[in-house]
Amino acid sequence: MSEDRPRTAISKIAPGEIRVRGYDIVELMGRKSFAEVAYLVLKGQLPNEAEGKMMDAILTSSVDHGVTPPSSLAARTVMSGGNPLNAAVAGGILAIGDTHGGAIEQCARILQEYAPKMGDPSEIARQLLADLKAKKMRMPGFGHRLHKTDPRTVRLFGMADEFKFSGRHQTLAKAIESEFREQGKSLPINVDGAIGAVISDMGFDWRLGKGFFIISRTVGLIAQANEELIREKPMRNLGISDYIYDGSPPQKLEDL
Amino acid sequence: MSEDRPRTAISKIAPGEIRVRGYDIVELMGRKSFAEVAYLVLKGQLPNEAEGKMMDAILTSSVDHGVTPPSSLAARTVMSGGNPLNAAVAGGILAIGDTHGGAIEQCARILQEYAPKMGDPSEIARQLLADLKAKKMRMPGFGHRLHKTDPRTVRLFGMADEFKFSGRHQTLAKAIESEFREQGKSLPINVDGAIGAVISDMGFDWRLGKGFFIISRTVGLIAQANEELIREKPMRNLGISDYIYDGSPPQKLEDL
Amino acid sequence: MSEDRPRTAISKIAPGEIRVRGYDIVELMGRKSFAEVAYLVLKGQLPNEAEGKMMDAILTSSVDHGVTPPSSLAARTVMSGGNPLNAAVAGGILAIGDTHGGAIEQCARILQEYAPKMGDPSEIARQLLADLKAKKMRMPGFGHRLHKTDPRTVRLFGMADEFKFSGRHQTLAKAIESEFREQGKSLPINVDGAIGAVISDMGFDWRLGKGFFIISRTVGLIAQANEELIREKPMRNLGISDYIYDGSPPQKLEDL
Amino acid sequence: MSEDRPRTAISKIAPGEIRVRGYDIVELMGRKSFAEVAYLVLKGQLPNEAEGKMMDAILTSSVDHGVTPPSSLAARTVMSGGNPLNAAVAGGILAIGDTHGGAIEQCARILQEYAPKMGDPSEIARQLLADLKAKKMRMPGFGHRLHKTDPRTVRLFGMADEFKFSGRHQTLAKAIESEFREQGKSLPINVDGAIGAVISDMGFDWRLGKGFFIISRTVGLIAQANEELIREKPMRNLGISDYIYDGSPPQKLEDL
Repeated sequence: MSEDRPRTAISKIAPGEIRVRGYDIVELMGRKSFAEVAYLVLKGQLPNEAEGKMMDAILTSSVDHGVTPPSSLAARTVMSGGNPLNAAVAGGILAIGDTHGGAIEQCARILQEYAPKMGDPSEIARQLLADLKAKKMRMPGFGHRLHKTDPRTVRLFGMADEFKFSGRHQTLAKAIESEFREQGKSLPINVDGAIGAVISDMGFDWRLGKGFFIISRTVGLIAQANEELIREKPMRNLGISDYIYDGSPPQKLEDL
Repeated sequence: MSEDRPRTAISKIAPGEIRVRGYDIVELMGRKSFAEVAYLVLKGQLPNEAEGKMMDAILTSSVDHGVTPPSSLAARTVMSGGNPLNAAVAGGILAIGDTHGGAIEQCARILQEYAPKMGDPSEIARQLLADLKAKKMRMPGFGHRLHKTDPRTVRLFGMADEFKFSGRHQTLAKAIESEFREQGKSLPINVDGAIGAVISDMGFDWRLGKGFFIISRTVGLIAQANEELIREKPMRNLGISDYIYDGSPPQKLEDL
Repeated sequence: MSEDRPRTAISKIAPGEIRVRGYDIVELMGRKSFAEVAYLVLKGQLPNEAEGKMMDAILTSSVDHGVTPPSSLAARTVMSGGNPLNAAVAGGILAIGDTHGGAIEQCARILQEYAPKMGDPSEIARQLLADLKAKKMRMPGFGHRLHKTDPRTVRLFGMADEFKFSGRHQTLAKAIESEFREQGKSLPINVDGAIGAVISDMGFDWRLGKGFFIISRTVGLIAQANEELIREKPMRNLGISDYIYDGSPPQKLEDL
Repeated sequence: MSEDRPRTAISKIAPGEIRVRGYDIVELMGRKSFAEVAYLVLKGQLPNEAEGKMMDAILTSSVDHGVTPPSSLAARTVMSGGNPLNAAVAGGILAIGDTHGGAIEQCARILQEYAPKMGDPSEIARQLLADLKAKKMRMPGFGHRLHKTDPRTVRLFGMADEFKFSGRHQTLAKAIESEFREQGKSLPINVDGAIGAVISDMGFDWRLGKGFFIISRTVGLIAQANEELIREKPMRNLGISDYIYDGSPPQKLEDL
């Protein structure tokens, strides 16, 4: 019986025609950016201009973070064992877990639970932190092992202001940061937290949170795996974190 | 000794500063599209406007192809076993191999070997096909199990004409298609072949070929895995290829 | 400083010498079975004879379950995309998750929490089920979608009786089964639950639970992926669960 | 039509009954070792006693090789990112490629091509090495980055002699080693080469070669991933290869 057949709302394929979320892929090509198309595929509808710009910025923000994150190391390691590019990228994506990229979805989950509550954002933030403390949990998406103030957060929120693209989730995230400061803790919103807040204001389900990081970082993982392939010997000692950077000197967009 | 340390030319990370290929990621955010940034990370330099537009179109072209490709099925299957999103996406990317997406790199490899040769494109095409025949190999990137004429190829090459972005590799690919026709074979360039030709004209190493498909399809895999999570029971019978489409009716960009 | 170096207690490698958990691998070869060596590597000490036999039986019990489990389908799908054997097996192992094989660790976790409690096993079982109900959780490792009574459970517990290898965790598991029966529910211990109880009586940390299933099923996944490679065309329609079995007719060990 | 349904010869599943290669899994439990069952699943028939013993020794030989191989590092890295055990093991297996474990299948492939040829083994060995040289290929399975003489090879071949389990492939492998020596090269057969020769004498298809290594090393990968979980902080610097061994002091089987 047809009722037993599973259902899909993503794509409809016929000879000579490929439609995603209702749109002909050929019509999208050249008229919508890849970031806008990614938004369409994940959300089910096209973004407006501000949402499209924010999507481009989100995907750009996490595109690479050097050789040391677990995902880079895993991708290089799989490549070093003598494997095809897709296996190396899969290895890298496997390493993106609760403690690496996973803060986006956890931060979004918590923001989406508390943001709809009535009341003053700072009161909600206090309540939220008290609730987490009672469960012995930390608030994900705040603080960074390397960057004291995460410059990507500053830029994302700056763009959101510019495009007048803000909302309850960004407000709550900022209230949490303030509340930390009042408690004497320096735990500024990191890029994961900022993305978690912005995609929540875009209306994305928190369970897609890790997806934004995965799309973005896949680009870096391909570059890392390819660099391993073309510059290093197979089965080398990978237990080294201290690389020499010999790439391009600093460039400015203005220089173009 | 520093000579023994490995080298990287991709990113340079310092507290408060993340540079990819020399550019500050914060400066790129909001000023360059994600497709342009992906081009930068993979190529080492920013694309010009035509290259950026072509990159957006390439990444859009393969974003999803429904529930039946091995990558979609693998992603859904891993999710169905009760796993996090990154594991499902990794499972999907693992299924992108020599016979699924792999034609891009193989087509690009062959085009990059023959395109620099002197002489008339149709003569080079004949020689190329004769050489492959002698090795009992098929030319990858031509013909499609479903689409008689791949509409994505038509669009990509149409855009390349519009932007005056053509080159020896696209010319050779078209000459191969003509040569097939003269031999009485209907093997039009498919989207893999078209991407292989365009990225070769962009100057990308063929070994990155599968990477363009991976970046693009990762978006679809996230959507497929998430749909499995939110609409289906765990451990269901996945041995079904006949889904009911219940998504958006056809949309036109003009309708917006 | 040496204090900052990470520590490992698994293997010690020197030129001409490989020791796992203190034992020379060459000395183990030919004198200990692979199941005993697996026990040694995971537990840190060699099993006694009964434990070694139980380990062999556990690893045998889950070696394959046909083409339909998510892990088989994922392994075949990755192979069908044109990938090496290790990528196919990795795809299969990725699909082993909370709802496929994961009951071993969850069952072991709960048994290890309740078994040390004082009192009558049936009272503990009642308490345990009441606690789970209050948390709206199901007891993992009980019931099977296909087998009314799981024949592997019967055999495992029979062997444990024969070898006088029982303990508090097996006793508690049986008490839970009885308690279900008293509540009018037919939820016999399945093979996951039986393994969870036996490895708990062996003293294994529950977090290793999925590991026993992974070692065992890896054998089946290799066979499934290889059969896909040698019998099927690449990129075939994998959305079929209704295979024809054309293998060996039933065999009896006595026939040998 | 039934002809269109795919076929499988591995397992037959019915309510209350699981048969692999014709044998009831419950009958195998407790009467056949896991190594014998693995042989059955991969080969389609049970091993004789010598083959069963050799299978145990093969699987034992590669069970772990410390923290430095790519597979160990990848498994630990995926775990460090905050992922479930199966994802970590999958990451490790992904790293087993052409240059890590892959020599088994390549060595077996070449031995299976040349061993059936008529003539004196040393002449065949000379011809084989000359052919490889002409193709600018190296003979896989000979030489080791760490072990001058691989003690696992000595043991495997010693057991084969003891059980009178030798054959053309082992003879050819030894002839290749001698030929290398005559050419002034010290390239003794390593464990990959020894396994490649023994499984070829057992009649296994070379395409299963990597499978023996995967089954064996899966045990070590579970131990490595679990040690990372229980002893290390998430997202630590994994770029270190210099671990302190703090496990069991040397043990002898005689001490038991």
